[in-house]
Amino acid sequence: MNDNGKIFSPVHVTSPFWEKYMEIVKEKMLPFQWDILNDKATVKIESERDDVNIPTEKSHVIANFLIAAGKKEGNHYGWLFQDSDLYKWIEAAANTYRVKPDEHLLTLMETCVELIEEAQDADGYLSTFYQIEKPQLKFRRLMESHELYCAGHLIEAAVAYAEATGDLRLIAVSDRFIACIKKAFGPNEGQINGADGHQEIELALVRLYEFTGNKNYLDLSYYFLNVRGQDPDFYHKQLLENEKNGIHEGHMPHIDLVYLQAHKPVIEQLEPRGHAVRMVYMAQAMAGTAYYLNDSALLNAAKKIWESIVSKRMYITGGIGSTVRGEAFTYDYDLPTDTMYCETCAAIGLLNFTSVLQKSDKNNAYADIMERVLYNSMLSGMSLDGEHFFYVNPLEVDPEASLKNPDKSHVKATRPSWFGCACCPPNLARTIPAIQRYIYDESEDTKRIWINQWIDSTGAFENATLQQQHDFRNKKESTFTITNTNDLETEIFIRIPYWLDNVSVWVNGEEKVLEITDGYFKLILFSNSIEVRLTYNMPVLKWQANPNVKSAYGKVAFQKGPFIYAAEESDNESALHLYHVKGEPVAIDIEDEVLGPISVIDVPAQKLEQTEPSSLYYLYQKPGYLEKNLRLIPYYCWANRDTGEMRVWLNDGGE
Amino acid sequence: MNDNGKIFSPVHVTSPFWEKYMEIVKEKMLPFQWDILNDKATVKIESERDDVNIPTEKSHVIANFLIAAGKKEGNHYGWLFQDSDLYKWIEAAANTYRVKPDEHLLTLMETCVELIEEAQDADGYLSTFYQIEKPQLKFRRLMESHELYCAGHLIEAAVAYAEATGDLRLIAVSDRFIACIKKAFGPNEGQINGADGHQEIELALVRLYEFTGNKNYLDLSYYFLNVRGQDPDFYHKQLLENEKNGIHEGHMPHIDLVYLQAHKPVIEQLEPRGHAVRMVYMAQAMAGTAYYLNDSALLNAAKKIWESIVSKRMYITGGIGSTVRGEAFTYDYDLPTDTMYCETCAAIGLLNFTSVLQKSDKNNAYADIMERVLYNSMLSGMSLDGEHFFYVNPLEVDPEASLKNPDKSHVKATRPSWFGCACCPPNLARTIPAIQRYIYDESEDTKRIWINQWIDSTGAFENATLQQQHDFRNKKESTFTITNTNDLETEIFIRIPYWLDNVSVWVNGEEKVLEITDGYFKLILFSNSIEVRLTYNMPVLKWQANPNVKSAYGKVAFQKGPFIYAAEESDNESALHLYHVKGEPVAIDIEDEVLGPISVIDVPAQKLEQTEPSSLYYLYQKPGYLEKNLRLIPYYCWANRDTGEMRVWLNDGGE
Repeated sequence: MNDNGKIFSPVHVTSPFWEKYMEIVKEKMLPFQWDILNDKATVKIESERDDVNIPTEKSHVIANFLIAAGKKEGNHYGWLFQDSDLYKWIEAAANTYRVKPDEHLLTLMETCVELIEEAQDADGYLSTFYQIEKPQLKFRRLMESHELYCAGHLIEAAVAYAEATGDLRLIAVSDRFIACIKKAFGPNEGQINGADGHQEIELALVRLYEFTGNKNYLDLSYYFLNVRGQDPDFYHKQLLENEKNGIHEGHMPHIDLVYLQAHKPVIEQLEPRGHAVRMVYMAQAMAGTAYYLNDSALLNAAKKIWESIVSKRMYITGGIGSTVRGEAFTYDYDLPTDTMYCETCAAIGLLNFTSVLQKSDKNNAYADIMERVLYNSMLSGMSLDGEHFFYVNPLEVDPEASLKNPDKSHVKATRPSWFGCACCPPNLARTIPAIQRYIYDESEDTKRIWINQWIDSTGAFENATLQQQHDFRNKKESTFTITNTNDLETEIFIRIPYWLDNVSVWVNGEEKVLEITDGYFKLILFSNSIEVRLTYNMPVLKWQANPNVKSAYGKVAFQKGPFIYAAEESDNESALHLYHVKGEPVAIDIEDEVLGPISVIDVPAQKLEQTEPSSLYYLYQKPGYLEKNLRLIPYYCWANRDTGEMRVWLNDGGE
Repeated sequence: MNDNGKIFSPVHVTSPFWEKYMEIVKEKMLPFQWDILNDKATVKIESERDDVNIPTEKSHVIANFLIAAGKKEGNHYGWLFQDSDLYKWIEAAANTYRVKPDEHLLTLMETCVELIEEAQDADGYLSTFYQIEKPQLKFRRLMESHELYCAGHLIEAAVAYAEATGDLRLIAVSDRFIACIKKAFGPNEGQINGADGHQEIELALVRLYEFTGNKNYLDLSYYFLNVRGQDPDFYHKQLLENEKNGIHEGHMPHIDLVYLQAHKPVIEQLEPRGHAVRMVYMAQAMAGTAYYLNDSALLNAAKKIWESIVSKRMYITGGIGSTVRGEAFTYDYDLPTDTMYCETCAAIGLLNFTSVLQKSDKNNAYADIMERVLYNSMLSGMSLDGEHFFYVNPLEVDPEASLKNPDKSHVKATRPSWFGCACCPPNLARTIPAIQRYIYDESEDTKRIWINQWIDSTGAFENATLQQQHDFRNKKESTFTITNTNDLETEIFIRIPYWLDNVSVWVNGEEKVLEITDGYFKLILFSNSIEVRLTYNMPVLKWQANPNVKSAYGKVAFQKGPFIYAAEESDNESALHLYHVKGEPVAIDIEDEVLGPISVIDVPAQKLEQTEPSSLYYLYQKPGYLEKNLRLIPYYCWANRDTGEMRVWLNDGGE
């Protein structure tokens, strides 16, 4: 397995920041989520928005599998895609096990694998809802069934489990399901010629190809990508056929093809529309399939989507999805800060999509976006205790609005323990222990290695072993050590993050001119042991948004290092909208009881002087202001203290 | 009929402004809406928001009555409350006929009355949906049935028709329906002890009491008000009973009691919550019933609701309803300018609620609010051609957002011809020709007369005839003439609007000191013929909102006379959010081809200088501005020219 040794390089993360998060996943999230899946946790499950139809009684995931396996009586409970919660848990456990083997975790994973084996039908089919409740509708309601979506998560779990343990049993389960799928789907008479409403199997098949080298998986991914949107009537026709066959139930649902990204062929979808998670999952598969199949048209389509996202439809935190309705993209520069979606899963999807594009195009823009997502819109999805999660990662919160204005019911002011639709928490759990994936990149011919993310780690590559170590807090110094060089022509590309200034570089003690090309400092190996040392400042960056972004007009946001900052009521007075920042921000390193060792930013500000009581409307009065300090914390760690207001974009009071 | 002569004083409106609107109702709206009701108009019916379940194929109102009358085959089509469209049309026609009799209109009204007579069941029941489709469910799904809501509109139509024509046939239909309702509803064994989910019959019964003097109607209104919310489980119990009796269909719906204002007794509902139209309809009935029954507790509850609305939950245009979800109030100071509801019907409801409160409490605050609603959030509900209507009256519109962000699908940038839910257009049509109602007020003992609205008109009261004539445009002069005085102790109270300054007053040619008490200038009659002449300026008023109103913070709005102003793209460049007004506004009287004789306001402004292309986020640059003029037009006449941006609240660039 893992023949080419390139995709899953033996990278070991030593960053205290990320080690802490991996520890949280191992010690908190995995046991906590295991209890949830087994309906043993006594937490309140919340609906992700104000919708009485969202199932919030229990998870029932393990129970669904037991019932499908014939080991328990009962009905299916939960969403059609409830199975994916288990698959993502296994992937998270496997990724964690890979970093730090643990017998108990292995035992749990094996239990899961056996349960899945038992639940699988003889023909390879596997989707507990349809097995238990509606066998006659298997693969017949693809607009909503999530059967191939779940298959995708099964495949991702299988690869992760095999990589971590060497145990191929889940790969075998996947292969049986894939065989069942290949029999059912295709262009031939009697086959279903369409794709699942929710993209996921496409990217999972690329991952399975990477693991096995078997091109058939890539072809199947390409088939699903290519068939999508070719016949925009496909989903409707399925329902009509069910009606004809007397197996349709209920009224004929409205099908929103744009939501499903099935309104036209994927290669013609040059801007991100519809459900944000689906969009980036699809685009990731497009980029991956295109890369391995050398399909430049498909790759360019994926790149156009990416360009459109990052240049016109992405929040400064890396969040995507401007509306809760359809959890979707809207239009260029439409980035409302208090009603957006910015789902944690969408952030993770954008991270993975970007990391795949980076394979074929070396440019620091990719690493910049991945970093922005990782440290901001992704990490904000979880609390520091690892037991509370955001589905929606807002740029601005007023707890009263979240509670009392139903347009903001999805914008929670505190992280719930669990959700009726629990896609985000396990998505975080599987991504964090796989952080090593995003740090380095190696060319196919092994002659070039890129250091994309500044994360303390070691990476053993074909032609060299790399180590990076950073001291952002005290010395403001980073060291990259290259040893075990096998080929002195190997080139190392070190990304120089845009959030540094006054960067000086020493190579084996000798100061060099820092030449940066496409965001990287290039080093041709000349010795068996090289030390690259960089010193720098980490200034506070003050951002503005394009004036077309109405919600951020007249406002500024702050950044230090990779972190976007936010003002929280815990550190300031309420009514954050009355502050106008004005003057030089100062970063201060602190050791916060709850938030840990962080840099806060203090910005001088003026706050409107309010005179109470005042009427609803009054004739213009020249406003009076009080001088105040506004304290900002890194966005990812907001909502870990008191419940209160938060905002990223702050009124600009001028310089 | 109309024994006491007070409620429907013989007031005749001579204002060119309002005469033009009454003419539009008569010549355009009534024929146009008649064609719609008969499915003869070839207009596009739009859904009021992005919801595929809204019926938009046709109106079918007359057809529903024909089917119920057994004169046509077929099914009911449209909302459960579709009947009310006809009742409101009759009321509009009657109010118009009253102002200007017209044989054709009379014939049409008579046709309607006969059709309604024929459709009515022998026992008095009348609701075409239940008669045609679900007779077994009559009065059994009150949470949504709108049967008593429609009864209320029938009653209002009957009173208006009787007042206008002297024909009591529709009153007889109402009486038969009321008898049927009184039999079915009440606290006794076997009766239904609850109220309709949508309040309306309550206020209509007050109106019927005013017309007939029959206190039984008042008692029935009081019963429905009083029973509401006493048993919050009432609606649910009805459904359970239906289930028990085998007549329940579908799943058990979620009942939002706050939406229905049925979560607690009405007298305990001291702040406006839930559906905005229902709220003000209910509060109007509370105020009216309390007034006639001398129920001070109920009156105080109504006043508390009103206070809460106007001091914390009303837009500067007089619009109410901060969210499309539930078309509802949200919480204090939550007045988003681009996602609000501000339904035309809610404005009309607030107008009527306020006019009823004014009976018992003489204070210019009521007249101010009525005026604000009349000239702004109500009139904006229709186009100047009388054939296009807004359901939602936004404070800020970007057509692209309305089209592409589903959170704003209800915020239309142009007025549609008709709606699937067509409550607003006929509500306007019935209110405009009844404008005379809102101008004067006379005390029970006829010894005091209030002039509340400055609208050219004559009013013949018990003790005096009043005439008012205004020249706001040229001379800035108003004349109030009092003649035919029967009682020299009669007091006349002339409201002095807050939007005037430098007011001078002459009484029979002699200048007087203008003493204002509670907003009114008081005059004790001393002669059989008095002329009060006022001269004044009409300054441009520059408003700020309470800083707690986040959406308007740092912004200003302009007013001249009773009109709130708005900037439209038709008069300015696009990107209105980039303008900062700064300096003295100037009002200019113009004669616009489309908008007619209006005052526009020109405000000096600075507009951000945009440099293209620019990235999505960039490091802070001191903004550069271009000097521009921003032209504003009265809000009510926006969206009558090109489709474009509009905003009421403009960035404050300081003085």
